[in-house]
Amino acid sequence: MRRVALVGAGMTPFGEHFDLGIKDLLPMAVTEAVGSVDKGFERADIDAAWFGELTTTDGFPSGILVDSCGLLDVPVTRVENACATGNDALRNAVYGVASGMLDVALVVGADKVRESSARSTFWEWMGLTRDMAWDYPIGVVAPANFALHVNRYLHESGATREHQAMVAVKNHHHGVSNPKAQLRFEITVDDVLDAPMVVEPFGVYDCTPQSDGAAALLVVGEEVVDRYTDRPVWVRGVGLGLDRVMHQHKTDMTTFPPTVKAARQAYAMAGVGPADIDVAEVHDCFTGVELIDYEDLGFCDRFAGGALVESGATAVGGRLPVNPSGGLKSKGHPPGATGIAQCVELFEQLRGESTNQVDGARVALAHNIGGPTAVAAVTILGFDKD
Amino acid sequence: MRRVALVGAGMTPFGEHFDLGIKDLLPMAVTEAVGSVDKGFERADIDAAWFGELTTTDGFPSGILVDSCGLLDVPVTRVENACATGNDALRNAVYGVASGMLDVALVVGADKVRESSARSTFWEWMGLTRDMAWDYPIGVVAPANFALHVNRYLHESGATREHQAMVAVKNHHHGVSNPKAQLRFEITVDDVLDAPMVVEPFGVYDCTPQSDGAAALLVVGEEVVDRYTDRPVWVRGVGLGLDRVMHQHKTDMTTFPPTVKAARQAYAMAGVGPADIDVAEVHDCFTGVELIDYEDLGFCDRFAGGALVESGATAVGGRLPVNPSGGLKSKGHPPGATGIAQCVELFEQLRGESTNQVDGARVALAHNIGGPTAVAAVTILGFDKD
Repeated sequence: MRRVALVGAGMTPFGEHFDLGIKDLLPMAVTEAVGSVDKGFERADIDAAWFGELTTTDGFPSGILVDSCGLLDVPVTRVENACATGNDALRNAVYGVASGMLDVALVVGADKVRESSARSTFWEWMGLTRDMAWDYPIGVVAPANFALHVNRYLHESGATREHQAMVAVKNHHHGVSNPKAQLRFEITVDDVLDAPMVVEPFGVYDCTPQSDGAAALLVVGEEVVDRYTDRPVWVRGVGLGLDRVMHQHKTDMTTFPPTVKAARQAYAMAGVGPADIDVAEVHDCFTGVELIDYEDLGFCDRFAGGALVESGATAVGGRLPVNPSGGLKSKGHPPGATGIAQCVELFEQLRGESTNQVDGARVALAHNIGGPTAVAAVTILGFDKD
Repeated sequence: MRRVALVGAGMTPFGEHFDLGIKDLLPMAVTEAVGSVDKGFERADIDAAWFGELTTTDGFPSGILVDSCGLLDVPVTRVENACATGNDALRNAVYGVASGMLDVALVVGADKVRESSARSTFWEWMGLTRDMAWDYPIGVVAPANFALHVNRYLHESGATREHQAMVAVKNHHHGVSNPKAQLRFEITVDDVLDAPMVVEPFGVYDCTPQSDGAAALLVVGEEVVDRYTDRPVWVRGVGLGLDRVMHQHKTDMTTFPPTVKAARQAYAMAGVGPADIDVAEVHDCFTGVELIDYEDLGFCDRFAGGALVESGATAVGGRLPVNPSGGLKSKGHPPGATGIAQCVELFEQLRGESTNQVDGARVALAHNIGGPTAVAAVTILGFDKD
């Protein structure tokens, strides 16, 4: 198979951009990605684009990307896969370039959650991401949905609310050094435990904020890499996993089978295993979810997630830093952009340019889970300059 | 590049399925596609799926496909590109298989327009497919949008409302022999001209109906074709083109630049030209649009579309039959399914199995245009048994 690399990456700050629409955010991210290419990049080189977006734009999504970024001759496919949208959009671009039919692809993710646009609201996309027959009408929106899993996980694993709080404390600490992060302040375990309850076992500080933002990647085939950079970041593996939508059909609430499936595919394609990962960005939409992610991704044994975060291994400076960007928890979570932004962070990590650098990172993993824990996407990136 | 073939195809009848939800329609189409494979097909062979759908399902689209069709281990990407969704979903699957990372892909398109589901309506997806800042608020929804184009086209080309009516008469005649078509009755030019006006120059019989339905294709790599059939239909070309979204930015209302761009890509990839096409399914959401399609696809000279339909060339029995299935006009138009259903018809045409067979068809073209005439997708299929 033809090898595929990232040669550019950019993103907007994540936050409550009440003053910016999606038509403003898209060109900001694309311009930064184009500007990040070492040897320069012409937009006319783009053969095709993929746009990850849920339901918060101001109209026809593919056309809005073309219009707002001056990409009139670029075919654009909109991909939607709930909170796994970003890494799945990248997966599709990788297939396009790997096929040999395209040399250069643009991947963009964006969402406006903090707005009331002409056609959509936060609650509209909430509905889009779960089953309308059962789960949504009885209130199983994202916090309640993940709470069902994490409550059972705490019960079976012996992990505690303090372990959840350690995830929040770690990711807030990481986010302080990231100028693109939404919540750039330190918190303590007590802050998390004392915060107002959203839904047991999640207080306010156990939850990701609602965010606006956009992120972009430039993806090229191996034969043209040299035109753009001598420091490519290779896409070594991609994977996507699904599961049943409704919660009455889940057989084990303490694991997310889509993550296990997506990781298996991505590891196999990359020819690496969990022990090879130097740095990861994982889906911490709620703190307890990051603990389950550790286990599903193979970073530790089953029910050892609490002990892993407590050991400090997943903080920058530890054995396997997770969410050095601040994660969804501190950096923010505009769903369509989230997976792309994870890869922006890892692109910078692998090139030694992150604001919260993990020393010597050579292999990196990005992970999203979404859609009532019914879909997950995993991307493995690698740097092999020498 | 690795060659890619269709080995199975199926679809539900298109119509007003008030008694069926999308969870019923999806397995109907997939089951028919699986059953159509000459040497048999196991669902466990499917490596990945693409699902084209706008906004009318009962919740999380990718998960609903997995759930309703028993495809728990299949990664599913939802693709949305307004009325070009179907052929773009196929394009993405072709990239996936052509990359060599997948051997067998399922492509499904579906929409429920004739319903009021828990979360969506016809008008919600109408909004999704145009610009919310200008076009939608002033009423430029699909009929008005295409009317702006066709009015100018009639003015500049000399084509008449009678020429438009001939498209409707032809496609209704074709649809009569298609058991899957929604409007299976003959009409006359006078019927069309005397029908109640929707928006000048479109009467009721110039407009596609609103439809529910699903369609599915099985796409495989060349090395595994023989497992499934000795009569593969090859995907010879795919293309996708975009344009500006808002009508004040269109430079020429008498042509659809996205079609021209998509066709150029697909013809180049296939190594064929318009003269090589034996049969086509094109986007006739409104009658005058089919006339413009003829020109944009290179089937005739500019402004010769009216004369072409009048000559009988585009009827079954003519030089280049267009919409032998009945087209959107008679077969129906559930947007996410439409492009896939066009390829179902062409799959059958190329294998000599259509209910309205074009003799000796060897090369076929499918075409969608959508999203305020801002996106088009073209697929070229070919049969080379010997």
